[in-house]
Amino acid sequence: MIRAVVLLSGGLDSATVLAIAKSEGRVCHALTFQYGQRHEIELAASRRVAVALHADEHVVYPINLRVFGASALTADIDVPKDAVGAPGIPVTYVPARNTIFLALALGFAEAREAQEIWLGVNAVDFSGYPDCRPEFIDAFQQVVLKGTRSGVEKGEPRIVTPLILLSKAEIIRRGVSLGIDYSMTHSCYDPDPSGKPCGHCDSCILRRRGFEEAGLSPSS
Amino acid sequence: MIRAVVLLSGGLDSATVLAIAKSEGRVCHALTFQYGQRHEIELAASRRVAVALHADEHVVYPINLRVFGASALTADIDVPKDAVGAPGIPVTYVPARNTIFLALALGFAEAREAQEIWLGVNAVDFSGYPDCRPEFIDAFQQVVLKGTRSGVEKGEPRIVTPLILLSKAEIIRRGVSLGIDYSMTHSCYDPDPSGKPCGHCDSCILRRRGFEEAGLSPSS
Repeated sequence: MIRAVVLLSGGLDSATVLAIAKSEGRVCHALTFQYGQRHEIELAASRRVAVALHADEHVVYPINLRVFGASALTADIDVPKDAVGAPGIPVTYVPARNTIFLALALGFAEAREAQEIWLGVNAVDFSGYPDCRPEFIDAFQQVVLKGTRSGVEKGEPRIVTPLILLSKAEIIRRGVSLGIDYSMTHSCYDPDPSGKPCGHCDSCILRRRGFEEAGLSPSS
Repeated sequence: MIRAVVLLSGGLDSATVLAIAKSEGRVCHALTFQYGQRHEIELAASRRVAVALHADEHVVYPINLRVFGASALTADIDVPKDAVGAPGIPVTYVPARNTIFLALALGFAEAREAQEIWLGVNAVDFSGYPDCRPEFIDAFQQVVLKGTRSGVEKGEPRIVTPLILLSKAEIIRRGVSLGIDYSMTHSCYDPDPSGKPCGHCDSCILRRRGFEEAGLSPSS
């Protein structure tokens, strides 16, 4: 029996990761962060996904990244619209977000004696965040091996990133083949108060393009 | 002007680090974690130290590591007594603690545009925690360089560990030479309700030995 901590945001990518992990027989401890993001509606999505895809445990972990500010996702800075492919790292970058999330996932994995940490980072159809690239994941794996009891004693947990080199369309096709209903997921960085996606942030655009390229009708 | 985030626990080592950073002209943003530790009295010590040593900012950041449990410092497991030098990693190890603390310090450093993160890890007179060793710090530095905007764009922040290869006696002598009154610091993992140190946990023993070896009378 292999235990896995699965980072679950409520978005399309992490839902696909959870479905893959379950399809490969993992016992899945889903971990969602409530980090002061504008789009807290994704927390509700994460709960729907955890139930629909049969996570074995789901922990929603509050972590206040607004203390630090400095990102359009957590501070009073406008989310850029229609800017996919603009050069540089966008203002929606949250300082050290995936490092912080992986560090907490690592603590959770050690406490649960999980052998793996799964996350849905993607370095193809993405916003250019440095902490979504393979070289970041490789560096963090070394931190695990050098800096934790389980890493030193057993070479665990292993960080698993099944989507990292897939296009959004490939991710969606993989998820559909596993039976995911993507309408339960949420991607938009800047939804209106009712939860309706803006349609113009990076996340909305990458999602819509992915469905188009997969030859499927967009689900929300 | 060089800005530094300084991890400050309220203990002897981190007080010394703050004094060194200030003596080298750094603008110091001290960061203390309230992480559900048994010895919360160290939070009061961190406030005394930040004021006495003239930190330029002091943030106490709440982070609930009790959610994960699995350590004598955060769960209902007895703190070992008179066990310094016992083989293996002790039960006071908190899963991924320094990885989590450094990850949050990194987010804070990026938000403050700090070029350095200082911390008082020590791999000489220590309890054998893997996340206090130079190889862990080196691995985390790579995470910074690969996974953050400031790391990719500027090769910052740099992680600074001035105590890592010093004995406890050397640390104390350095601090005394900088004018630190160590009576304001707190080291014990298992104080009584009034805050009196137990005298027998690893931290108490290492502290007492350090003062003895430095030829000084122990300050509490």
